[in-house]
Amino acid sequence: MAETVFKKIQIVGTSPVSFTDAAAKAVAKVAETEKNASWFEVVELRGAIADGKVSQYQVTVNVGCKLE
Amino acid sequence: MAETVFKKIQIVGTSPVSFTDAAAKAVAKVAETEKNASWFEVVELRGAIADGKVSQYQVTVNVGCKLE
Amino acid sequence: MAETVFKKIQIVGTSPVSFTDAAAKAVAKVAETEKNASWFEVVELRGAIADGKVSQYQVTVNVGCKLE
Amino acid sequence: MAETVFKKIQIVGTSPVSFTDAAAKAVAKVAETEKNASWFEVVELRGAIADGKVSQYQVTVNVGCKLE
Amino acid sequence: MAETVFKKIQIVGTSPVSFTDAAAKAVAKVAETEKNASWFEVVELRGAIADGKVSQYQVTVNVGCKLE
Amino acid sequence: MAETVFKKIQIVGTSPVSFTDAAAKAVAKVAETEKNASWFEVVELRGAIADGKVSQYQVTVNVGCKLE
Amino acid sequence: MAETVFKKIQIVGTSPVSFTDAAAKAVAKVAETEKNASWFEVVELRGAIADGKVSQYQVTVNVGCKLE
Amino acid sequence: MAETVFKKIQIVGTSPVSFTDAAAKAVAKVAETEKNASWFEVVELRGAIADGKVSQYQVTVNVGCKLE
Amino acid sequence: MAETVFKKIQIVGTSPVSFTDAAAKAVAKVAETEKNASWFEVVELRGAIADGKVSQYQVTVNVGCKLE
Amino acid sequence: MAETVFKKIQIVGTSPVSFTDAAAKAVAKVAETEKNASWFEVVELRGAIADGKVSQYQVTVNVGCKLE
Amino acid sequence: MAETVFKKIQIVGTSPVSFTDAAAKAVAKVAETEKNASWFEVVELRGAIADGKVSQYQVTVNVGCKLE
Amino acid sequence: MAETVFKKIQIVGTSPVSFTDAAAKAVAKVAETEKNASWFEVVELRGAIADGKVSQYQVTVNVGCKLE
Repeated sequence: MAETVFKKIQIVGTSPVSFTDAAAKAVAKVAETEKNASWFEVVELRGAIADGKVSQYQVTVNVGCKLE
Repeated sequence: MAETVFKKIQIVGTSPVSFTDAAAKAVAKVAETEKNASWFEVVELRGAIADGKVSQYQVTVNVGCKLE
Repeated sequence: MAETVFKKIQIVGTSPVSFTDAAAKAVAKVAETEKNASWFEVVELRGAIADGKVSQYQVTVNVGCKLE
Repeated sequence: MAETVFKKIQIVGTSPVSFTDAAAKAVAKVAETEKNASWFEVVELRGAIADGKVSQYQVTVNVGCKLE
Repeated sequence: MAETVFKKIQIVGTSPVSFTDAAAKAVAKVAETEKNASWFEVVELRGAIADGKVSQYQVTVNVGCKLE
Repeated sequence: MAETVFKKIQIVGTSPVSFTDAAAKAVAKVAETEKNASWFEVVELRGAIADGKVSQYQVTVNVGCKLE
Repeated sequence: MAETVFKKIQIVGTSPVSFTDAAAKAVAKVAETEKNASWFEVVELRGAIADGKVSQYQVTVNVGCKLE
Repeated sequence: MAETVFKKIQIVGTSPVSFTDAAAKAVAKVAETEKNASWFEVVELRGAIADGKVSQYQVTVNVGCKLE
Repeated sequence: MAETVFKKIQIVGTSPVSFTDAAAKAVAKVAETEKNASWFEVVELRGAIADGKVSQYQVTVNVGCKLE
Repeated sequence: MAETVFKKIQIVGTSPVSFTDAAAKAVAKVAETEKNASWFEVVELRGAIADGKVSQYQVTVNVGCKLE
Repeated sequence: MAETVFKKIQIVGTSPVSFTDAAAKAVAKVAETEKNASWFEVVELRGAIADGKVSQYQVTVNVGCKLE
Repeated sequence: MAETVFKKIQIVGTSPVSFTDAAAKAVAKVAETEKNASWFEVVELRGAIADGKVSQYQVTVNVGCKLE
C-alpha cells in the first residue's frame, strides 16, 4: 500500500428531500473540481424550517481526496 | 439584522420509514404550537427493533424558535 | 421491571441507497444470530465515493441485545 | 408502534444523600406537571462542598415525555 | 442546603457588538418570564456575516432556573 | 509487565435501586462467562420512569477482560 | 459579587461501596489541604473487578477551590 | 430554497484586545478572497501570555462560504 | 527547539464585565506565582445571574507553564 | 461495491516499546481468531508507570472485521 | 505580537512504519505548497490491516499555516 | 483494595523524535517530584513545524499519582 496523502475538505450539501440526498449533493459538488474524492464522513445534520415544515435538509461532510 | 432571541426545544420524532421522516415528524409537531420555528439540529439517531427488523427510526432534534 | 442485562454490539451496515437502508442492513444482520436485539444507536455516518458519486452509505450502530 | 413524538426537558435534581437520590428527585419533580414522563438520560454530575464535605449531589437529566 | 430542583432552558442571544453582549441579551430575555434564573452555561458561539464583516454574534446558553 | 491484550465488552446493567447497583449487576453478568474481567468504565447513565418515579436505573459499562 | 479566582484540582476517589462514596472520599481528601474547596464536577466513573465482582468504585472529580 | 452547496474554511484570528475582535479579524481576512462568506462557528478559544498578561486572544472559526 | 516540559493549571477567572476580562483575570492570577506562564486554552464559559441580569462572567482556562 | 456488513471489536494492546507497537499487538491478537480484520481506529492512548518511567504503552482500538 | 491570521488545512498522512512517521508525512506534504506551515494538531489515528497485520498507519492532522 | 485517593497532573512533554518519546519525557519529568506516579492518559497530540518538517512532537498527558 503506497504512502499516499489525502486532504479533507468540509462541505455542506442541501436538499429539500432527505439527509441522504443532501450528502450526495455535497459529494457531487466536490467531485466537479476534485477528481480523486474517495470517501466522506458526516460531521453534522441540520435543516431549515418554513411554514411549519422542513424546507431543507443540510448535511456537513468531510470529503477525503487523494493528493498527487 | 435585529437583536432577536431564540429558544431551542428538544424533540424526538419517530417514524417506521426513515431518519429523514422521523426528523420531519418532530419538526411538524413543534410547528403545531410554535409558529416561529426556523431551524433544527440533529442531536441523536436511534431506533427500535422488532422481529429482527428496524420497527422505528428515532431522531432527536433541537428546534430553534424565534421569541417575540 | 425485571433486572435484565443487555450487551451492545457495534456493527457497520452498508447500502448503495441511503443511510436509513444501511442502518436497516446492519440491524438485519445482527438479528440473524441474536434473537433478542431490541434497539440501536447510530454512532457514525460515513460513505465511499466512486466516479464522483456516493457509491456506498455506511452507518455504524450499537445494537442492544437482551442477555438470558 | 405508533409514530409518537417526545419532548426532552432538562432538569437538575439535588440531594444531600447520593447521585441516585438526586436523579430521583429530578424525575419526581418533572412528574408533578408532566404525566407522560417515560425515561431519563444523565447529562452531568456535580456537587457542592461545605465544611470540607459534600453538602449536595447535583444531577442534570434530560427527561423524555410523550406529547399528545 | 435545600433539595431544590432547577430546569435548564436553552436560549440563543444575538448582538451586533460582541459575544458577551449576545450572552447578556439571552439572559435578559429569559428573565422577563423566569424570575428565578440563577446561572448560565455557554453551549455554542456562532455568528452571521454580511458584506465581508461579522454582522451578528450568536451565543447559545443554557439558563438554570429554580423551580418552586 | 507482560504484553497482555484485553478486549472490552459493552454491557448495560439495570437495577430498581441505584446506579451503583446497576453497574454491579452488569459486571456480575459478564463474570458469569468471562473469568478474566478486570476493570470497567461507565459509558452512559439512563433510566426508565413509571408512575412518576424512577423504575429502573440503567448503566452502560465497558468491561475490560484479559485475553489468553 | 467579587472578582474571585478559583483553581480546579483533579482527584480520583475510590470506594468499595458506591460511586457516591468514592466522590465523597475524593472531596474529603482535598479538603484536608484546601480549606476553600467549594464545588466539584464528575469527570469519569470507572472501577476495578476482582473475583467476578466490583471491588472498587473510582470517581474522578474536578474540585473547585477559591484562591486568596 | 435553492439546493446550494457551501464549503467551510477553518481560520484562526488573533487580537490583542478581545475574543470578539479576534473572531472579527478571522472573518474579515476570509472575506478578502471569498465574497460569499455567510456565517461562522467558533471551534476553539486560546491565547498567548507574555509578561504575566494575555498578549493575544486567538479564536478558531469555521467560515461557511456559498459555492457557485 | 529544546525538549521542554510544561504543566497545565486549570483556573476559573471571573469578571462583571466580559468573557475576555474574566480570562485575563485568570491569567493574571496564575502569573502571580508562575513566572513561566506562556499560553492558555479556554475550557468552559459560564456565568452567574442576579436580578435578571448577568452579574458575573466565568471563564475556565488551562494555563500552560514551562517547567524548569 | 457489495452490501457487506462489518462488526467492530474493541481491543487494548500493550507494549513496553511504543504506542505504534501496542496498536500492532492489538491488531495481531484479533487476527488470530478473525480472518477478515480490515481496519482499526484508535480510541484511547494510556500507559502504566513504574520506577518513574513508562513501563507499558496501552492503545485501545476498534478493529473492523467483515462478516460473512 | 502582530495580529496575524492562520488557516488550518486537514490532511491524512500514511505510513507502513508508525503513527509518528504518518504525521511527519502529512506535514511534509503540506509544506510542499504552503511555506508558512507552523504547527499541527492530531485529529484522528486509524490504520489498515492486511494479512492479519497493520499494513498502514493513518494520522489525520490539522496543519496551521500563516496567511500573508 | 485500600480506599486510596489519586491526583491527576496535566503535563505536556516534547520530543524531536516521536509521540512515544514525548509522552515518556512528560512522565519522567513528573517522576522527579512525584514518587507515586502510577499511570497516564493521553489528552492531546500536537507538534511544531520548522523548515517544512516536524521539529517537535508534543503530547499532553494526565499523570495519576497516589496521595499519601
